Amino acid sequence: MGAGAVGCYYGGMLCRAGHQVMLIGRTQHVEAIRRHGLLMDTTGFRAHIPVQASVEVGDIQGASLILCCIKSNDTENAAAMMAPFVGPDAIVLSLQNGVENAKRLQAKLLRTVYPAVVYVAVEMMGPGHLKHHGRGELVVGPSAMSSDMLEDFAKAGVPVRVSDNVVGELWAKLILNCAYNAISAITKLPYGPLFENEDARDLMRLVVRECLAVAQRESITLPGDSWQGVELIAATMSGQFSSTAQDLMRGRRSEIDDLNGHIVRRGQSLAIDTPANQALYSLVKLLESAFTANQL
Amino acid sequence: MGAGAVGCYYGGMLCRAGHQVMLIGRTQHVEAIRRHGLLMDTTGFRAHIPVQASVEVGDIQGASLILCCIKSNDTENAAAMMAPFVGPDAIVLSLQNGVENAKRLQAKLLRTVYPAVVYVAVEMMGPGHLKHHGRGELVVGPSAMSSDMLEDFAKAGVPVRVSDNVVGELWAKLILNCAYNAISAITKLPYGPLFENEDARDLMRLVVRECLAVAQRESITLPGDSWQGVELIAATMSGQFSSTAQDLMRGRRSEIDDLNGHIVRRGQSLAIDTPANQALYSLVKLLESAFTANQL
Repeated sequence: MGAGAVGCYYGGMLCRAGHQVMLIGRTQHVEAIRRHGLLMDTTGFRAHIPVQASVEVGDIQGASLILCCIKSNDTENAAAMMAPFVGPDAIVLSLQNGVENAKRLQAKLLRTVYPAVVYVAVEMMGPGHLKHHGRGELVVGPSAMSSDMLEDFAKAGVPVRVSDNVVGELWAKLILNCAYNAISAITKLPYGPLFENEDARDLMRLVVRECLAVAQRESITLPGDSWQGVELIAATMSGQFSSTAQDLMRGRRSEIDDLNGHIVRRGQSLAIDTPANQALYSLVKLLESAFTANQL
Repeated sequence: MGAGAVGCYYGGMLCRAGHQVMLIGRTQHVEAIRRHGLLMDTTGFRAHIPVQASVEVGDIQGASLILCCIKSNDTENAAAMMAPFVGPDAIVLSLQNGVENAKRLQAKLLRTVYPAVVYVAVEMMGPGHLKHHGRGELVVGPSAMSSDMLEDFAKAGVPVRVSDNVVGELWAKLILNCAYNAISAITKLPYGPLFENEDARDLMRLVVRECLAVAQRESITLPGDSWQGVELIAATMSGQFSSTAQDLMRGRRSEIDDLNGHIVRRGQSLAIDTPANQALYSLVKLLESAFTANQL
């Protein structure tokens, strides 16, 4: 569900390994994929994958596994559209940024939805054309996938790590998103050059510190050192522009409400100051409003 | 000294009123002004003003009044170049942003330099072509100008207010610059639309609050309510882009070190957190580094 870069990557990898996959997405991608297959331009191979694609949400019917790869802003709408078609035995995973999407899906679908933490550097280069810059692993909780499914994913080239602290893992990813996404979007710089810049690192340190203060008060146990995580992103995804940067470059609304915006809102509830996150949040909202205004 | 928008505006206004004025500036502006005069496109008139112009700092020799209208980053260099040519009776004013430029000039010129707070919305549209969007008043301390000089300025259409708290006035302007300049530069929006945006106002409030905390610890008495000042700028300079925005659009280094950068440095010295100012400072430095990198 959702044939953006993340949906196309995981759907394409599973299809390539012989699984029956249906991508549900927007017209432009679906038409291109139906005509030429999904062009996967990955660090390991380049191929046209003959994956099925549809614009009809109803075509999820009968799926044994549903990967929700939609933008956070669309979660509620998409869930409402999916609800009538999710079979009773289907397993539903949320492959989304932010820490609230599985909960939101669950509330609308009235069933368990498992969050999966996604680490992949991908972007759509054009209709039905996926570019993969690196990584591709998922992190899920112990009950999200059967051991057969884990094996299927591994065979398909999608390493899945099982964590007994998936909420902490989601927060760890959220903190990385808070550190990089807005700054990459505002400056139009990829992760590597950002991290090499001392001013950017100063700002990212402030952002991470605020996130940690909120996480601590939320009783989140983070799985590792957040700053080491920030360093690792620069090293493993140096050329990557954040999804927020990609959204803004394309004149689309970003997920900032679920990234720095989440920290700001939780900070307000908990009486924790989050001015660095607020600054990044406000600036991205302003940049969004500027292109929205231009479109009017 | 300095034939950018501020230097051209005040030099042009005084020349138009019959005073002998020499603009010291860069080749492109000086050549255009020598050929066609200074084109002043103001809210009150449009005229070619036959003001003298030179690229030679030595041509300040003999001046009874020197208005330093150079960028903060150039203060030290310009002062060193000016020093041999400033006459013993010359009055030197600093018409610059930031709160340290008069002190810096003074240290190099070894004489009193009076700060003047500048409220004018101007920009250079091209070589020798000045566009004035509104306002134009100066604020100086009690001993900066004689009553004759104040009268001369008034007759030339340059209202000068004398304040016995010029340091407080400089800080009031600094706080406005901290609130608007970086955000206007990052979002490429003028003051009016910025202030109408709730997210921008949230951010500006954080910035102003941090500035006030620093100002208070510096024992600065601000002349009025800072937030009312922010509102007034939106009302009186709605279409204006900040000088920082103009600098970045032209691929020039901005004065951010003397604006939000000053608050960050003073905050560090005084152990006052200034994350919102740090965020804006870092982002502008990053945007500067991005175009510097592109030029290499």
